[in-house]
Amino acid sequence: MEQNTTELFEEFKELTASEFFRRNKQMLGFSGKIRSLTIVFHELITNSLDAAEEAGILPEISIELKRLGKDHYLLKHADNGPGIPENFITKVYCQMFAGSKFRNIQSRGQQGLGCSGCVLLSQMTTGQPVTIRSRYKENNEYKGVEMKVKLDVKKNTGIILERKEIETDRTGSGIEIEFKEVSYSLSEQGAYEYIRRTVIGNPHARIIFKDPAGKKYTFERATDKIPPLPKEVLPHPKGVTADDIIHLCKTTPKKRFKNLLMDSLSRVSQAKIKEVQEATNIDMNKRPKSITWQEAEAVVKQFDLMKFMAPPTSGLKPIGSDQIEKGINEILLPEFSTAITRKPKAYRGGVSFIIEAGIAYGGKSGRSIGIQKKAEIMRFANRVPLTFDQGSCAITEALKSIDWKRYGIRDLDNAPITVFVNIISTNVPYLSTGKQSVAPEEEIVQEIRQATMKIARRLEKYIRVKKAAKNEAMRSKIFEDLVPVVITQSALLAEKDVPEYDKIMDKVTHKAKIMDMQQRLKQPEIEPMQIKTEEPKMRIKTEEED
Amino acid sequence: MEQNTTELFEEFKELTASEFFRRNKQMLGFSGKIRSLTIVFHELITNSLDAAEEAGILPEISIELKRLGKDHYLLKHADNGPGIPENFITKVYCQMFAGSKFRNIQSRGQQGLGCSGCVLLSQMTTGQPVTIRSRYKENNEYKGVEMKVKLDVKKNTGIILERKEIETDRTGSGIEIEFKEVSYSLSEQGAYEYIRRTVIGNPHARIIFKDPAGKKYTFERATDKIPPLPKEVLPHPKGVTADDIIHLCKTTPKKRFKNLLMDSLSRVSQAKIKEVQEATNIDMNKRPKSITWQEAEAVVKQFDLMKFMAPPTSGLKPIGSDQIEKGINEILLPEFSTAITRKPKAYRGGVSFIIEAGIAYGGKSGRSIGIQKKAEIMRFANRVPLTFDQGSCAITEALKSIDWKRYGIRDLDNAPITVFVNIISTNVPYLSTGKQSVAPEEEIVQEIRQATMKIARRLEKYIRVKKAAKNEAMRSKIFEDLVPVVITQSALLAEKDVPEYDKIMDKVTHKAKIMDMQQRLKQPEIEPMQIKTEEPKMRIKTEEED
Repeated sequence: MEQNTTELFEEFKELTASEFFRRNKQMLGFSGKIRSLTIVFHELITNSLDAAEEAGILPEISIELKRLGKDHYLLKHADNGPGIPENFITKVYCQMFAGSKFRNIQSRGQQGLGCSGCVLLSQMTTGQPVTIRSRYKENNEYKGVEMKVKLDVKKNTGIILERKEIETDRTGSGIEIEFKEVSYSLSEQGAYEYIRRTVIGNPHARIIFKDPAGKKYTFERATDKIPPLPKEVLPHPKGVTADDIIHLCKTTPKKRFKNLLMDSLSRVSQAKIKEVQEATNIDMNKRPKSITWQEAEAVVKQFDLMKFMAPPTSGLKPIGSDQIEKGINEILLPEFSTAITRKPKAYRGGVSFIIEAGIAYGGKSGRSIGIQKKAEIMRFANRVPLTFDQGSCAITEALKSIDWKRYGIRDLDNAPITVFVNIISTNVPYLSTGKQSVAPEEEIVQEIRQATMKIARRLEKYIRVKKAAKNEAMRSKIFEDLVPVVITQSALLAEKDVPEYDKIMDKVTHKAKIMDMQQRLKQPEIEPMQIKTEEPKMRIKTEEED
Repeated sequence: MEQNTTELFEEFKELTASEFFRRNKQMLGFSGKIRSLTIVFHELITNSLDAAEEAGILPEISIELKRLGKDHYLLKHADNGPGIPENFITKVYCQMFAGSKFRNIQSRGQQGLGCSGCVLLSQMTTGQPVTIRSRYKENNEYKGVEMKVKLDVKKNTGIILERKEIETDRTGSGIEIEFKEVSYSLSEQGAYEYIRRTVIGNPHARIIFKDPAGKKYTFERATDKIPPLPKEVLPHPKGVTADDIIHLCKTTPKKRFKNLLMDSLSRVSQAKIKEVQEATNIDMNKRPKSITWQEAEAVVKQFDLMKFMAPPTSGLKPIGSDQIEKGINEILLPEFSTAITRKPKAYRGGVSFIIEAGIAYGGKSGRSIGIQKKAEIMRFANRVPLTFDQGSCAITEALKSIDWKRYGIRDLDNAPITVFVNIISTNVPYLSTGKQSVAPEEEIVQEIRQATMKIARRLEKYIRVKKAAKNEAMRSKIFEDLVPVVITQSALLAEKDVPEYDKIMDKVTHKAKIMDMQQRLKQPEIEPMQIKTEEPKMRIKTEEED
């Protein structure tokens, strides 16, 4: 080697998280003009929904998108959530890896990147500060503040440029933020579709959106039920790793190992501690700080051999099959719809999750490509629509592995159906920083298959009944057409008057048809009410700007 | 709202990068046992190749994988690169977002996450420290050091547990690192296949791999040519953003804006500066620190309107079509192979890139699924095999959009071919932190299409010629079979002796066939040498452990 190695290291640098993501913005999901804007909507809406839910508030979000020039927009966002205390505002909006959601809780966001990522993108493309408004409650008083802030990339912190107090009697937060190099699109991956899907997955949310043309869409709630407060769930012993135990031991104030285990994990009782102690010979009264890796590993190994109650699922709050059907019906106006919420399962031994699935058939189901209808797969994780990277997602993989022919769908890609899948978990295993696809963990893929096949069977029955009814209609049409001829001809042959038969015929055949239909629908799993007789009212109101 | 907002923020936390990735290890590519190990191989090999190339060394890498238990392995890695100076060792191996590659240079790694990510995974699954050996050159002297280190997740730094000096007369670095919850596989996504593809994309590298069964594979170099040193390339004015200019202005020691532009960007001459000044009215002698966002934006806008020479491509070092063919031939032993290295193009206006493509047909091309052959797509970025997330990759998208029927391939999925695509760029637009797929930028997708269609045409010709030759062979077979009969029967009929015709026939028909083949091959784009007559020698040597 000719050079000195040290010369090669002259350029060695240490970056802050903000500097890192400034160089790698695609890792935050910001790649492409349409996608970038959709990700911005995603981050803001997600934060609003999480915050409202945590505070027990029925969420209401308003977004206005103004076009300022080519690929240049001003976005105004406001919600009715709990707001952000003043001293946390720059942390939430200007600091990567800072957040309140690093807990074992079911929430949409989890990574402390969302809001600060949007501010970074704004600053990178426009150089402008953002305006933040927060109304919050402190010492039982409402406070309000408005500030203009910038993100200091070198330090990964915020800089406050202007600040003023605002009077208020309610809570909520909002942002005014400018972007260049983004574009608004009505396509499947665009911002509008993102909102539409959010409303399907969150029937309790009200979203008002004013698009760049000045058109105002009001997506009304399908339900006024405040969603239950998500709870923090202690990790299950079957899902815990030696590294987790060591981590707990290092950070706990507890004096005894056994108390740490019982208080930090779920389903670990005094009896279980005794069982572990007997099997591993580890003194469970030891100080947590003195636990070695080998001991932690021995405990995990022992946990694996033991029986525990299933992980508590009280922290998981599914949408519920009724609510999914409501969401689907009011947006897709389908001919047939059905949904299922499965029982909780666990992946990697101890992380619990719930799969929900829905199918809509006919009406506005599916994607329209010209006059053709293609199947549409709507993927959700904790009620958040997943819009990109579908190729590598557990949901796509599971749905593609189903033999759809068995369910009356000759070709999934070209069927007029919408398949909805939602995975609920305190710990959704996302594949990438952009949180757009779910890792194909075996247990998850299996559950999605099971859930979808179950409802596909109902769809198959509907399609079969519909086909049979069609055949029946054809047969009775022939019957109706033929009988008068027979009667007339018989009368002529008998040299009698042709009898009055129209009204009698109508009554007879109509009654026969209804009885037949009811007979068919008495088969289990199909409720007559699922056959839509009247069009549901549109839930989206549209107003042109005056 | 009932609660105080401040209560909701009691759990607010700030994480270090290490803490963040400890919670989100799948974002480093660590998800699934097979994939996790492949990513480890990827990070270590990538770093070795980059380091060797930067120091002008012909790389030699040895990896030994020992099975210690179920899903439990010890990996020993060593290279002949420039090594790491002692005071940088913990930064390289134990600190996220620290690295020497944050430059506008074509390198495999770019993110300062690779090595520290592997150490994090090791620590999370085994709790063990790693042993690092570095031999390097400082003040023209060789130095060596061995240390055991751990990663302090809370601080995102390294902790040195043991340290000793080692005597040495060469350079190189190495690591001994243990993993649990990983598994070694011979599948397409496994570690062995990763090495095989690395060798195809890097015919100048020598890799020695000892697998868990003790079998030693030596992948010899196909060429001894030291690859040219990659150069740092200044950004092109067409690819620069206002944010980049502001960033440059803030960090430059230059006194005048014009000098900053000329020295920090490529293709910006005194004449161009004058042109910008006249169009924008910005005083180009201003101090860079006083440049506003509006001014930076005006400059970028003006750059967009102006003509510049294409971005310099001296920094781009493609593999070269000859080398690709060598790589392909020696590993796949194909019946036909061809490759192309295209001229540099630019995406997003100013980021230059080069597409290289190769096709191998027959032999060991394609994937074997039982007795069936399926097409195999080998994706590379800066010579690094991309193993996962193929669905969303520009390369997959481009190849799927080609009408393969036009090139004699009835069904790409089921053809016995291997398609090789490599994208070379100082700035590959990866889609995710795991660097496993390339963003489908329009210009990139187009170039991949063009490159592949060009070589697909050559393959089509080969298939056509082969078919014709087969038909011809059949015809001459009939001729050869028939003529003797005619001669014999004629002799019998004429009541003469049957003449000695075998040798004459042989000569005549053989000559005719050769002339015919040469005729066909004279058509442009097919070189006779591309039709393989003898099997190339195997480049992989395999030895069983003694």
